[in-house]
Amino acid sequence: MSDHVELDALKFDDRGLLPAVVQDVRSGEVLMVAWMDREALERTLAEGRMVYWSRSRQELGRKGDTSGHTQHWEELRVDCDGDVLLARVHQEGPACHTGERTCFHRRL
Amino acid sequence: MSDHVELDALKFDDRGLLPAVVQDVRSGEVLMVAWMDREALERTLAEGRMVYWSRSRQELGRKGDTSGHTQHWEELRVDCDGDVLLARVHQEGPACHTGERTCFHRRL
Repeated sequence: MSDHVELDALKFDDRGLLPAVVQDVRSGEVLMVAWMDREALERTLAEGRMVYWSRSRQELGRKGDTSGHTQHWEELRVDCDGDVLLARVHQEGPACHTGERTCFHRRL
Repeated sequence: MSDHVELDALKFDDRGLLPAVVQDVRSGEVLMVAWMDREALERTLAEGRMVYWSRSRQELGRKGDTSGHTQHWEELRVDCDGDVLLARVHQEGPACHTGERTCFHRRL
């Protein structure tokens, strides 16, 4: 578990995006999946807070700027293919815009 | 946490796929992210084991058929947008083809 990956080694898809799985570092709960372009990831690294690319609004957004429900990351991990990020975060308030703690509040 | 989502309500992307986040139900560890088309999801539901669409091989594959490292799901959850699946599974052996327990064995 000691390997490190450089930012330049990450593989963004043909839209220039990669998915970020967000996990609560305390509870282990999976909170949400959001998308990042390279700039979102660079800002996430620089600011210590999660910044995403909104596919619907087509713009960058720092999680919590509107809602107050910030996500400070403690650890960023990369999968074996280098095309998915796992962010282990300290979640302030609910992660989901519905007010639920996690976006995965429904069963299939 | 009691809502249910029907299969027909899920939103597959323009390639007919959605990402599935796979979490170990015992440890809470996030193991991998893989992709599913509708058939993969229907087979996953019917068989009780995870079936994915391989984007590199362009074919369906039931996790563990070659490696023996099966994933039986205990719970399938859907995010608020209906376009990401969270599978809570019983993982047999390592999830990653590298032999690591999780695909997220590297830090950024």
